[in-house]
Amino acid sequence: MSYDNLPGLAITVTDGVATATLDHPPMNLMDGVLLPSLRGFLDRVRTDGDVRVVVFDSADDEFFSAHGDMHYLTDPDALPAATRAAIAAAPGATIPDGMNILQAMSEEVRALPQVTIGKVAGFARGAGNEFLMSLDMRFAAIGRSGQGQSEALMGILPGGGGTVNITRLIGRPRALEVILGGDLVDAELAERYGLVNRALPAHEIDAYVNTLARRIAGLRPQVIRVIKDTVNAVSPAIPHQAYAIENQGLMATADAEVVALAHKLLAAGIQTRAGERHHERILNEV
Amino acid sequence: MSYDNLPGLAITVTDGVATATLDHPPMNLMDGVLLPSLRGFLDRVRTDGDVRVVVFDSADDEFFSAHGDMHYLTDPDALPAATRAAIAAAPGATIPDGMNILQAMSEEVRALPQVTIGKVAGFARGAGNEFLMSLDMRFAAIGRSGQGQSEALMGILPGGGGTVNITRLIGRPRALEVILGGDLVDAELAERYGLVNRALPAHEIDAYVNTLARRIAGLRPQVIRVIKDTVNAVSPAIPHQAYAIENQGLMATADAEVVALAHKLLAAGIQTRAGERHHERILNEV
Amino acid sequence: MSYDNLPGLAITVTDGVATATLDHPPMNLMDGVLLPSLRGFLDRVRTDGDVRVVVFDSADDEFFSAHGDMHYLTDPDALPAATRAAIAAAPGATIPDGMNILQAMSEEVRALPQVTIGKVAGFARGAGNEFLMSLDMRFAAIGRSGQGQSEALMGILPGGGGTVNITRLIGRPRALEVILGGDLVDAELAERYGLVNRALPAHEIDAYVNTLARRIAGLRPQVIRVIKDTVNAVSPAIPHQAYAIENQGLMATADAEVVALAHKLLAAGIQTRAGERHHERILNEV
Repeated sequence: MSYDNLPGLAITVTDGVATATLDHPPMNLMDGVLLPSLRGFLDRVRTDGDVRVVVFDSADDEFFSAHGDMHYLTDPDALPAATRAAIAAAPGATIPDGMNILQAMSEEVRALPQVTIGKVAGFARGAGNEFLMSLDMRFAAIGRSGQGQSEALMGILPGGGGTVNITRLIGRPRALEVILGGDLVDAELAERYGLVNRALPAHEIDAYVNTLARRIAGLRPQVIRVIKDTVNAVSPAIPHQAYAIENQGLMATADAEVVALAHKLLAAGIQTRAGERHHERILNEV
Repeated sequence: MSYDNLPGLAITVTDGVATATLDHPPMNLMDGVLLPSLRGFLDRVRTDGDVRVVVFDSADDEFFSAHGDMHYLTDPDALPAATRAAIAAAPGATIPDGMNILQAMSEEVRALPQVTIGKVAGFARGAGNEFLMSLDMRFAAIGRSGQGQSEALMGILPGGGGTVNITRLIGRPRALEVILGGDLVDAELAERYGLVNRALPAHEIDAYVNTLARRIAGLRPQVIRVIKDTVNAVSPAIPHQAYAIENQGLMATADAEVVALAHKLLAAGIQTRAGERHHERILNEV
Repeated sequence: MSYDNLPGLAITVTDGVATATLDHPPMNLMDGVLLPSLRGFLDRVRTDGDVRVVVFDSADDEFFSAHGDMHYLTDPDALPAATRAAIAAAPGATIPDGMNILQAMSEEVRALPQVTIGKVAGFARGAGNEFLMSLDMRFAAIGRSGQGQSEALMGILPGGGGTVNITRLIGRPRALEVILGGDLVDAELAERYGLVNRALPAHEIDAYVNTLARRIAGLRPQVIRVIKDTVNAVSPAIPHQAYAIENQGLMATADAEVVALAHKLLAAGIQTRAGERHHERILNEV
């Protein structure tokens, strides 16, 4: 399988493990470049019999992914254009009625025959964290990882599957705290809440994930399949209705007031590398 | 909205946050005074557009709420009278068939448009902890908080929504341990089990809850609504059938033997401030 | 009730607590001796009105239970013979269509009127850990307990209810990690993941479990029943369909390649006391 022509994404395959490295400077924005590449990658890897595990990580020490492109809020054409490009990159995978492109990707990740693992050692916010939450497992580097959903502070909700998936992962009381509070969650708290499988020392996370991925890739494919099938039977997919409610919530709240706020946030330094180091502070101040 | 005439409850509203302080000496018993006030408060706040968050705390350093009034067990008229008063205090909110007043309140809390937060820094037992468990989130002060359901040791079960809600919050194995064992759960264990969102140092809990509540209250109401709607779609309400089974269990077990034990417990100092400091010890000894 | 003629199992009943001690040297294999005894015990205790709590522990300091007998993989007659013996030992309890004997036992444990508690202070792997996971609660001794499902490394899946029950207990992301990774889980991690209720210091676990068991056994039987009924209404049984998918997965993967690997593992020291101390290392090396 060729993984060329996926701008913003570097793919290597070794011993049955595909490593998909987000490499889209300056901060791995989930934008009209990265979203089509991710969806195109999912479409190709799904039928790649040489790959049994996919590890998602980042080429950027500070950012797993900053968040979704703010121009999706300020520019009415940006999201439809990115969606069209993402659909073009994965022509066979249609978007179910009532879902948006990020939600559809979340379901596509779950349906992969491969096992997916996220390794987070920097900021993962907004749509970046939503993507991370859709993976089968994830591990966070202590002292370096920071996950957050700050959409509520921008006047919307995490509408790309994030509200759905975080509730599924950590339960209603903590999901409401994380989503409504909008605070950054460090690795240790992420483990205690269940946002990640485990918080690992930063100098051990690579070895841990590498060993786990290689061990799983060494299993017979039919073993992976029957384990995923059984686990999925006990922990079934979220009904599309929940995604539809989330998506309607996003459309209902993304109004003129939100556009105006988004412009102010951009002016205050959001979506710059320097500003994103203090993302929550800027949001609480503006 | 006026929050007068709610004896045992002190309500203040600031910046969209209502603080409902249990202030019903000597130990915030859930009794014929506090239950009607709580239900009356829920009925009023539901339509108060100025309130987006409700924080429940206690005026008493040692007791969030001791538990339900033991006279509900020893005096056959006490609970019906309290129920009638609670219904009178919230005339529009009917009690679903097969549910009791505490269970109905639990569902009423969940259905509020506001976000509810509990702050526990003292003992919360029995019906007091059952009420706490029905809130959207809760935080416990390390070294000061103690939550417990000791009903099994009194010959009944936590029948005011507690068995239902604890199972939902912490899962079957730990729910069985907490409910059947009847031990007091301190803040750290409550966090590890999921009885509370988080255990916080006693000197930080006020600031944490205050900041979180004010931040949420600053969100647009429609954002709170779509987030709650989506979270609720993923984590649906408990079927009424489960409450009915719990309530039938309560009625089936509250027999003459329980009444006799309740008299003995009252004679041994239960439902006195001094005795309640050693509630579990008294129960295990009598 | 007589608990004679249960080879490999030592039963004592005191104060309403039955202690069922796995005592089947050299390492409490789940084999043609222990499985029939366990199922026979369940069948008798179910109707024993003198027993309200059952504690399962091990007479062996190092092994709660090594795992299922490897001859179930190498000898085509071993598992059917053990299944026939187990059915003979519990004649009234039929095996639902599509389930295997271990899965059926898992459901039989859940349906007991008694409360079941596991105490693990040694290795519990494979079918041994699957049995442990089916109990109402379990506690692990810090520094001594090690739970693991290494079936994937043997070419199959934990097919005796383990894949189902672990997913139910710890959720999809961590279930996939534990089952696909096959690593041993120590007591502290088991608590953080929810594989056990709590990790306890090795010198405290006996007293904790003993006190809890005796306290529960002192409750009125109807109180235990209504609490279990309500908890079960909120946390319903796993649909038989999930067990059927798991069992089909086991049958589909237990092929000639697995038999050949099982022979190699036996030759490398698996299923010897010395070898089992390094079970995961042998599996990863062979």
